[in-house]
Amino acid sequence: MSEQSVAVVLSGCGVVDGAEITEAVGLLIALSQAGIPYVCYAPDRPQMHVFDHAKGEDGDGARNILTESARIARGKIAPLSRLKASEHAAVLFPGGFGAAKNLSTFATDGRDARLYDDVRTVVLDFILEQKPLLALCAAPLVLALAARDAGIQGAKLTVGTHAEGAALVEALEAWGQTHVETPVDAACVDEAHRFVTAPAYMYGAATPAEVFASCQAAVAALKPLLH
Amino acid sequence: MSEQSVAVVLSGCGVVDGAEITEAVGLLIALSQAGIPYVCYAPDRPQMHVFDHAKGEDGDGARNILTESARIARGKIAPLSRLKASEHAAVLFPGGFGAAKNLSTFATDGRDARLYDDVRTVVLDFILEQKPLLALCAAPLVLALAARDAGIQGAKLTVGTHAEGAALVEALEAWGQTHVETPVDAACVDEAHRFVTAPAYMYGAATPAEVFASCQAAVAALKPLLH
Repeated sequence: MSEQSVAVVLSGCGVVDGAEITEAVGLLIALSQAGIPYVCYAPDRPQMHVFDHAKGEDGDGARNILTESARIARGKIAPLSRLKASEHAAVLFPGGFGAAKNLSTFATDGRDARLYDDVRTVVLDFILEQKPLLALCAAPLVLALAARDAGIQGAKLTVGTHAEGAALVEALEAWGQTHVETPVDAACVDEAHRFVTAPAYMYGAATPAEVFASCQAAVAALKPLLH
Repeated sequence: MSEQSVAVVLSGCGVVDGAEITEAVGLLIALSQAGIPYVCYAPDRPQMHVFDHAKGEDGDGARNILTESARIARGKIAPLSRLKASEHAAVLFPGGFGAAKNLSTFATDGRDARLYDDVRTVVLDFILEQKPLLALCAAPLVLALAARDAGIQGAKLTVGTHAEGAALVEALEAWGQTHVETPVDAACVDEAHRFVTAPAYMYGAATPAEVFASCQAAVAALKPLLH
């Protein structure tokens, strides 16, 4: 049991316009199994867009990232503006396109992406406090952008294989970081920068059991870094 | 590996107006770990209402059950109208208020509830074919209503404890079925009727790890009934 809880940052509710749900839930189950308390947060602002996951096309209307993330957290969630690095032992990001659409501008800007200011502040604070950061699937792009902004070069991160994550790998390397190929059921640990990343659904054909194994591997790698 | 896949019926995406997300994902992970293939389905019609899970109050707008359920299923989902009992080895229902709002009218009608016709047809077909039915949390009410409609009395079902599930227990018994108190990490099995139920978040203070244990216990109890 860590003394401080960890912060889990959600980016909506659904793989194409928010947080990937299996990864988010798998991460919370893995934390719970490991006896690590957590608090969920999400930005209280509109999603980039709404996607119809049944039809596979853009959907209608506007949704708020915090409101949708609250579905995963069963209502127990706070606005990202209230997240203070001093109050938590680590910060964790499940994947999903929300990382590229709602936490950063990667989906539209590619290599020229930036983190949204509220996200940037939080992630830089955790880096400055030398506390661990964990990210799954596509969310290592959030760590890579923050590392670049903090002047860090060569941080080791994974988004699976060079081939499956090609666009992300190219961006991570353009931002000065290093991609490490990692199997679906393992984590990539950068001990110097205290970054833990795992591929989860970056393997497009992964099963829910494999994605959960990715979550468990990441949490197992995080645990010894918490103190 | 079963020869036929099982059918998982979702009722939206969010505990208060749809399928409970941790239970739905936990069930899919448990099936995947057990090597049991599955296909997801959901009714293609409007949800009873939309709930704002962040504010804890009614939300705006209208949403479709299939469209929202597709978020959990990552787009791999079919309309409930296409579900044929002859094509699947069993039918499974995660919990959430969706069972009481979108699959049945229990939320508004209590003891006078009925199943929506599309749900009733499917569940009665599985009962007639003597194939197993699995339900978590509040969703055993779907099995109890179908059992009543099929003329079955005394089917054993659980919604946790008599105290925590009081309103549901009263209804299940009014419909002629029998409630069996069951711990969060165990399943209630009615071998005669091939019903498997487990409490999950009927225990309001359950952790994600305990809810996942409930899912795993239910799947472990289902497995020997599949052939």
